This record gives sequence, C-alpha cells and structure tokens, in this order.
Amino acid sequence: MRMNEPAIRLQVDAEDGNARAGILFTRRGEIETPVFMPVGTAGSVKGIRFEELEDQDLDARIILGNTYHLWLRPGIETIRAGGGLHRFIGWDRPLLTDSGGFQVWSLGALRKISEEGIQFRSHVDGSLQFLSPEVSMEVQAALGSDIVMVFDECAPGQAPAEEARQSMELTARWARRSRERFDSLQQEGADAGRKPACGLSGRQALFGIVQGAAHLDLRRESLRRTMEIEFDGYAIGGLSVGEEKKVMWGVVGEIAPLMPASRPRYLMGVGTPEDLLEGVSRGVDMFDCVLPTRNGRTGQAFTSRGKLNIKNARWTRDTRPLDESCRCSVCRRHSRAYLRHLYLTGEMLASILLTHHNLAFFLDTMRGVRQSIRSGYFPTFRREFTERLSANGE
Amino acid sequence: MRMNEPAIRLQVDAEDGNARAGILFTRRGEIETPVFMPVGTAGSVKGIRFEELEDQDLDARIILGNTYHLWLRPGIETIRAGGGLHRFIGWDRPLLTDSGGFQVWSLGALRKISEEGIQFRSHVDGSLQFLSPEVSMEVQAALGSDIVMVFDECAPGQAPAEEARQSMELTARWARRSRERFDSLQQEGADAGRKPACGLSGRQALFGIVQGAAHLDLRRESLRRTMEIEFDGYAIGGLSVGEEKKVMWGVVGEIAPLMPASRPRYLMGVGTPEDLLEGVSRGVDMFDCVLPTRNGRTGQAFTSRGKLNIKNARWTRDTRPLDESCRCSVCRRHSRAYLRHLYLTGEMLASILLTHHNLAFFLDTMRGVRQSIRSGYFPTFRREFTERLSANGE
Repeated sequence: MRMNEPAIRLQVDAEDGNARAGILFTRRGEIETPVFMPVGTAGSVKGIRFEELEDQDLDARIILGNTYHLWLRPGIETIRAGGGLHRFIGWDRPLLTDSGGFQVWSLGALRKISEEGIQFRSHVDGSLQFLSPEVSMEVQAALGSDIVMVFDECAPGQAPAEEARQSMELTARWARRSRERFDSLQQEGADAGRKPACGLSGRQALFGIVQGAAHLDLRRESLRRTMEIEFDGYAIGGLSVGEEKKVMWGVVGEIAPLMPASRPRYLMGVGTPEDLLEGVSRGVDMFDCVLPTRNGRTGQAFTSRGKLNIKNARWTRDTRPLDESCRCSVCRRHSRAYLRHLYLTGEMLASILLTHHNLAFFLDTMRGVRQSIRSGYFPTFRREFTERLSANGE
Repeated sequence: MRMNEPAIRLQVDAEDGNARAGILFTRRGEIETPVFMPVGTAGSVKGIRFEELEDQDLDARIILGNTYHLWLRPGIETIRAGGGLHRFIGWDRPLLTDSGGFQVWSLGALRKISEEGIQFRSHVDGSLQFLSPEVSMEVQAALGSDIVMVFDECAPGQAPAEEARQSMELTARWARRSRERFDSLQQEGADAGRKPACGLSGRQALFGIVQGAAHLDLRRESLRRTMEIEFDGYAIGGLSVGEEKKVMWGVVGEIAPLMPASRPRYLMGVGTPEDLLEGVSRGVDMFDCVLPTRNGRTGQAFTSRGKLNIKNARWTRDTRPLDESCRCSVCRRHSRAYLRHLYLTGEMLASILLTHHNLAFFLDTMRGVRQSIRSGYFPTFRREFTERLSANGE
C-alpha cells in the first residue's frame, strides 16, 4: 500500500460552464463522471442481476449499498465472513456506502439523538440499536466499500435557522469524529475491501457531507468546516427531502461550485432525469436515487418523452417499445402491450424489465451528458433533452 | 406451405433400453430430446428473462404456455393484435400450449362438465366462461403455438374404474373434435404462428393425450383410440395428480413403449429430477413441470446432492455455491449465504437467482441424459445421478 497516494483521484477532462466531465479513478476501476449510481439497498439492485449491471446495456460503474440495511441484516459478521461486501454479493466494481444516518432518520422509530450518536429501534426486529460516527465507520470498514460517507445528521428541508444550525454543527463535529475513526481503521487494516491499484493508496475513500437545510449561510459554513477536515470527495446532503425544487437548486447552485474542483462532488439522493441535468449544470459529478428501480416496480417507465404508466389501458394493444428512442434490451424485444400484461398479471418479469429499462434510460442519459460536455454542446443537449421530456408524446 | 409434409419430425439417433435420444425438428428450430420444457404460464417463465432462457447456461429450446391463463388474460384479441404469442412475448423459439383443460380442472371454480364442454368461472374475475375442444383449438390457433394439445378431461388419480372410463371416453370424443376443428383452422389459416421450414409443413402440430387414471386397461384403450385418430405426438396426461409414484410409473412403463416410435412422447406435468430419469428410462421424450420455477420462488434449490432449503440457518455464513458441481452463472458467482440473505430480506433477486439455478440444473440434467444415451451409458448415468441425489450431502 502506498499510504501517501490518494484513495481516489478525479481527472477532469472537459468543462462547459459549471458542468464537467472526467474520470474518477478508484481501486476497483474507473468511473466516468458525471455518473448515476444505481441503489443496491440490501446488497441487491432490486430485480437486476449483476451480469446485467455489467453488460453494456447498463454498464453501471459503481453502485450504492445502504449501511443501515446491511448492518441490521445480514449483519457485519456475516458479511465479514463472506470477505466483505464485494465478495459477499459478488460485485467487483466500485461500491459506495452511505453512513446509515439518513435511513435512521427516515426509517428508525423512536430516535433519540445525543452528542454521542443516535439510538433507535430497528425496523427489522424492533431491537434497540445505536449508531454513531465511530460505529458507522466501523461498519463501513467491515463492508469494505470503496467510498465511505461520514455519519451526518439530516435536518428537515424546511427546518428553521436555529434547528438547522444545531444540526449542521452536530454534523460538523460528527464529521471530525468520522474522519478520526476512519483513519485509525485504515491504519488497523479493518477495511475488508482493500485492493492495490496503480497510483492509488488501495484504501477506502471518505466523503464529507454538507448540511444546513435551505439556509445558504449555514450551507456555506458547513462547506467551510467540512473542507477544513479534508475529504476525498464532498457531498451535498439533506436535499430532496420535501423542500421545493427551487430551494434545492439554490443550495446546489451556491455550494457545488465552491467545492474543491479537484474532488468529486456528490448530490445525495437525487433524482429525476431532469434533476440529473440540473445538477450537472451546477457542477455535480455523482448522483444516486431509487427512482429508476422503485418506479420500475410500481409500473412507471422513464422515457425520452416523459414518464409512462404501464398500467394505462391505452397500451393494451400497443406494439411499440416503452421508448422508441431507447436501444436497451427491453425496448429491443418487448412491447408496451406485453409489459402491461405482465404488470397486470402480477408477473415478476414486469418489475425486472421496467427496472432494467429505467436504469438503462438513466445511465444512457448520463452517457449523453458526458459526451455533450466533452464535445462542448451540453447546453444544447440539455435543452433538447428537456424539450423532448415535456413533449409528453407517449 | 407444403401441406403434405409433417408439422414436426422426430429423428431418433440413439436408444438404450426404452430410453431414446434424438432431435425434434419444428418450424421454429430443433429440439434435442429428451427435453425438459420450462413453464411460461402467462407468457413469462416466472422471474426469468428470455435472454437468459436463450443463453448457453439454460439454452431452453422450447417453453410451455398455458392456454387457460393467456385466454383469460390478456385475452386472444390482444395476443392476436400482437401478432400471436411468439411475437407478443418476444420469443422466437418453439412454444407448446396446453389445452386449458387441466387448469379448468385445477383452478376453475364451479365447473360444469357436459358433452359439449366445460362451463366454469374465471379465477381472474369470476366471469362465466365456456371451454370446449373447438374453443381450445381456436384459442391455440390464435396463440400460434408450435405444438397444440387436444382438449381432454382429466380424471382424479384415484378415480374408480367407471368414473375413469367415462372420463377417458369423453376425452376420446373430444380428441376427435379437437382434431377436426384443428384441421379446419389450419385450412382457414387461423394459425398465428405459421412459419415456413425446410421439410416441414409450417403448420402447428397437434398432440393427442392418453387418459384413464390408474387403470391400465383404460390407458391401453385410450392409447388405441388416440392413435386411431392420428396425431403428431402423443402425451400421457392425468398423472402426477395425487396418485402414488409407483402407480404413475406403472402407467408410464406400460403406455410409453406402446406409443408410435416415430412420434414424440410427452409426459405432462412431470416432475422432479429423479422423475425425469424414470420417465426417460421408460421411453418418454418430453417433460414439463413448474417445480424448478415454483420452488425457486419459495427458496428451494435443486442440486446434484438433493434439495436445499435456502432459508436454513446453517447457510448463514456458507460461502459455497448452491451446488458445487454446477457451472451455472448463479453458482459461479453467488454463495448460499448471499442467497439466504436475499431470500430472508424479501429481495426479488432471491427468486430470480434460485429459479435460474433450478432451471439450469433441470436442463443440464437433461443434457447429461441425452449424452449418456447417445454414448450408451444411460443406466450408469442414471444410477450415479440417483445415488448422488440421495447422498443428501448439503
């Protein structure tokens, strides 16, 4: 291991306004940015086999795992026995894990927040659990993910200034504790995913998270305090949690360009295809969201002409693919009529195929975004993409 | 179309006792026999994409569709609008459809059987429906399956002689009506799946079904009456419906060898891996069963060492594949521990992967069977396979 080398390295190849395209080098391979990361909550991108994620149709270069879910079930000892998360699930490309904080915030019943951490009841078995910066770092080291997120506290989108400040300050203290425990775990060799890689340390990367709700002054202060600690990448958290879109873009537009240009910028939990382009135009490099997978399971397809509800009776005998502009394996093979039939009959294949198409659409959109930035026509790409979406020409 | 050519042609290449291996030529490609046919009830082999069925891991040469399910939902008009079942579902390899009779028997509430046909209530919406030899042939013509089954009446496995005789005689009369309506539909060009093929008529094939419950005299009479009508293949129905195994093998062992050697022999709805070998040894060429798919969804894997329940706590940290002798994509990539985790977490991927492995095991077993017959060591293959299965060395 070369401890003085960085854990990851971002190479920015092209810029167009605030938008930028490049390559993120990780110990498990290269990730072209801007990138969309499919969510593999409990160690599985729901309904999708890993072979499909790797195939050229999707070619997902990095997926996300949820520390909260994996920690509660199957638990760290089981994953450790399996050789870390990559080996346990059978995925050798990069993995990012969140800190668990957001799930505790959204799923954990009877939360009790203290300076030390968060006590809560497991949504699985009701047992009392305790999560802190230290525990989160220990769990993520045992998972051996390639990118680790600091343990943060997420304030509600409409939190008033004082509440948002306290939350942000707690996040800042927790970020420092996360960094310290993370560093000692790396020294101790606790990282289950360590892997030599040319020009990189082979260690996990750690990302800081900017909080502060909708208050730009708090967001700027959070960014400054996070940057002081120094991280391998910087994320914007606490958005897309109920606030208005213009508030979200106000924060992202203010904060993303202030982040270190040499480090990846990650907008957590965002978003729709339109959101991806909005984020990219403000300088974001990384996104994750459950929309393509979750909506696939509820019968909603994302297409170049907007959303399509497969349950709609108008597709009963429609022999067209979900998206006539899409070249994914689902659109090459199956009609709306067949997909509708599968969905109404309760066939698992409906979820499988809609999810596959949705991921293909998201990942393909990002391919288009990268190419347009590299070729200098991102604004045109963005305008045409948005116009097509709203054409609603199902 | 060359109307004097057969719809399908069986070429028997090797025999070993009553077991035989060959190639069944159909208008949509060749099927090596003996063959196991995965069941695609409502136009989908549950949890499996068609690309997987085609890939070398499975390489399923023929799948089965259920006339009853497809007729009720999405309905014939929708499938016709989609260009027949092959085009509607996106599968260009051979399809066999059953007649609907068995599903009415097992699913239809409030059945009323008359000479004309069967009146029943749909399990989908409770509507009153009527199925007869003529309707079944019309539906199967609209589906355009490559192999059509006559509309039969299935007596319970333990039906007494008089009840079984009446059922068998009704089946014989319905077989003749099926043949007549089928022939006129072919003349009328109602077959949605017609396809030119070298040396074949390009038409649908029609199989007769032998009934008679556990009564060998009735079975022999049923066979004689079915053969009088003349079909492209012959099936044994009404087995694996609650009778004892030795009764089933008594019937198959008596009837299969009496069937015309030049036509495929199909044992309907059977069975376990052991059953496939038992059937083959008695001269059966074709099998179908929901076991690999259904059990995959309930957490049961078929392996070379017997069944494995993935829910079992002993697999919690077991890094071995489901079957150490299996080379399918699931066994190459995933551990029992991971599959157990997926199952317990309710992840769809558990069903997908277990079903894939189970189908791979069934189809691979049949590859082994064919090879052993061709190479003259089927009895050895059968003995070793059975010994391994009962080793139960999970």
